[in-house]
Amino acid sequence: MTLRDALRDHLIATSDGDAAHDVAHTDRVWANAQSIADGEAPVDMTVLLAACYFHDLVTLPKDSPDRARASALSADAAAPVLATLGLSPAQIDSARHAITAHSFSARIPPETLAAKILQDADRIEALGAIGIARCFATTGVLGGALFHGLDPFGTNRDLNDKAYAVDHFKIKLLRLPDTMQTASGRKLAQARAGVLRDFLDQLALELDVPVSGW
Amino acid sequence: MTLRDALRDHLIATSDGDAAHDVAHTDRVWANAQSIADGEAPVDMTVLLAACYFHDLVTLPKDSPDRARASALSADAAAPVLATLGLSPAQIDSARHAITAHSFSARIPPETLAAKILQDADRIEALGAIGIARCFATTGVLGGALFHGLDPFGTNRDLNDKAYAVDHFKIKLLRLPDTMQTASGRKLAQARAGVLRDFLDQLALELDVPVSGW
Repeated sequence: MTLRDALRDHLIATSDGDAAHDVAHTDRVWANAQSIADGEAPVDMTVLLAACYFHDLVTLPKDSPDRARASALSADAAAPVLATLGLSPAQIDSARHAITAHSFSARIPPETLAAKILQDADRIEALGAIGIARCFATTGVLGGALFHGLDPFGTNRDLNDKAYAVDHFKIKLLRLPDTMQTASGRKLAQARAGVLRDFLDQLALELDVPVSGW
Repeated sequence: MTLRDALRDHLIATSDGDAAHDVAHTDRVWANAQSIADGEAPVDMTVLLAACYFHDLVTLPKDSPDRARASALSADAAAPVLATLGLSPAQIDSARHAITAHSFSARIPPETLAAKILQDADRIEALGAIGIARCFATTGVLGGALFHGLDPFGTNRDLNDKAYAVDHFKIKLLRLPDTMQTASGRKLAQARAGVLRDFLDQLALELDVPVSGW
């Protein structure tokens, strides 16, 4: 069994949500990470693989007060499993740092290339068509509206992405390319942010509201 | 005060959800209806206006067992208000039929041009960027997933749009242009369905799954 298969099996076995979806997301993060790593300096791919597959090993609801601790809890849960899978103590430390630092809400800067690549690879998932789908589904879960009825793009009001999904594009998603840690990650993020801008252009057309230069 | 303002005020006053969103949706349905009516035979625009603004006067949750009755309840609630606003008994009957028949779940065929135009105008809202946003938000509300993790486009499994938002594109949304009642409505629906196809193409690219010819 490859290390990847062992990591995947553990992820599926411990998933408390939709295991097929969790593993599919994780497969894409790993695919993104490999693409990004191709354009960067050499990195320990065993560490990167382990960090990608276990970055969301512990998940908490988006509105949980403990959400900022989820990535640290994932790192804690990952360490003993990675030891049984043969990673060295130095590799485990490196994977732990990457897992802990990947999260927005943890507010821990990624200090290694592996940590930077994982953070970029995961943030790519908030952009593109996948990001559009996730943003609106999250709003549905949390009871928000699609957009403000009278000023959908927040031209003349304060933005509020707890209340309106479209506000999240301006507050967070369209700013993600600027938060990327690697040049290759930024390039991929810029392309996927273009998908969001095209979507907003089309929405503005349908809502008969002027395009406001996102 | 114009008839439209009076209808709008009543809609806002009786809204039990997000009034700004409800009225914005209704404004768009009326805008769609006027575009469609432009390309069709003459129709009583007072009836069409009244039917557009009151088509969702009574709303029920998407998972309510009474949902198929919501449009008939809306017609019942609309009739006395339309009488006070000066519509004739014949106009009120016509608006009632259009309101009752606009809904998918009511399964009542629209028999008049006004009823056909309202149904088309409302269904346009399930397509385009607005339709994409609504589809994923609804899945979030109902606790479904964005897509099947291993077979996102249902190439080798039965489609299930209660479980997966993307399945709803194939089961219902992409078929809407064929259900349109007027030629002008069909043309508008086909353009908006193209936005959905482009979205699925982009999603397939990001998921690294072959495009399956929607």
